[in-house]
Amino acid sequence: MDDAYQAVLAANQRFYQAFNEGDMPGMEAVWSRDLPVQCIHPGWDPVLGREAVLESWRDIFDHATGATLAPREERVLLQGETAMVLTFEQIGDQPLIATNLFAREAGEWRMTHHHAGPCRSVPPSPGGAPSRLQ
Amino acid sequence: MDDAYQAVLAANQRFYQAFNEGDMPGMEAVWSRDLPVQCIHPGWDPVLGREAVLESWRDIFDHATGATLAPREERVLLQGETAMVLTFEQIGDQPLIATNLFAREAGEWRMTHHHAGPCRSVPPSPGGAPSRLQ
Repeated sequence: MDDAYQAVLAANQRFYQAFNEGDMPGMEAVWSRDLPVQCIHPGWDPVLGREAVLESWRDIFDHATGATLAPREERVLLQGETAMVLTFEQIGDQPLIATNLFAREAGEWRMTHHHAGPCRSVPPSPGGAPSRLQ
Repeated sequence: MDDAYQAVLAANQRFYQAFNEGDMPGMEAVWSRDLPVQCIHPGWDPVLGREAVLESWRDIFDHATGATLAPREERVLLQGETAMVLTFEQIGDQPLIATNLFAREAGEWRMTHHHAGPCRSVPPSPGGAPSRLQ
């Protein structure tokens, strides 16, 4: 496991931490400043561009229900200066699967894309360890 | 609009054409041979690896309902040797949004990831033109 793998996993975890804490500065720090970014909240139409994406998170935080979202069984794929994390999530009783894309920008891994949607099942416990897609 | 943009759009369109024609050789040609591939059919758990992904399409084609799937308003993002197409789809009455990832392999753009899930609305006509994400 190399440094990039750990750094991408850490960036992915900061995203979920910002969500769970309703932390707007944290969410702002997660997302890329310079690249085109897109966010697809479950069942929504896509939100395009940094300002609109952050506005959508601000709106979600303003209507927070206290629900938390934990990544489980993160699968990391490194492709040079970009990376993907495929991860299960669960919010309330709803199992979700997310495609999270990152790019290295100014030496930091920042999110460029989040697409979350329903799936059949999530692992029953948070025990599923992260792994690398081969 | 440069060659890579057109080539990625064409690869994306071959994916939908293979689906609509139930064309397994066409679907096999669309997906990467060498890179890790993943496919998330709407509401399913993720399918990992070329063999399992192609098996899932074979199974879908075997139970075909005649439904067709047309990409609408494709948004293309080029990032060196990888690319994303964000596109609306509609199958029957169900509006979907898809994150499609491609990589350049042996000079051809091949699909490495497909994640389709529900969204609120699709453009009412196929008129939405492709565009480039900035």
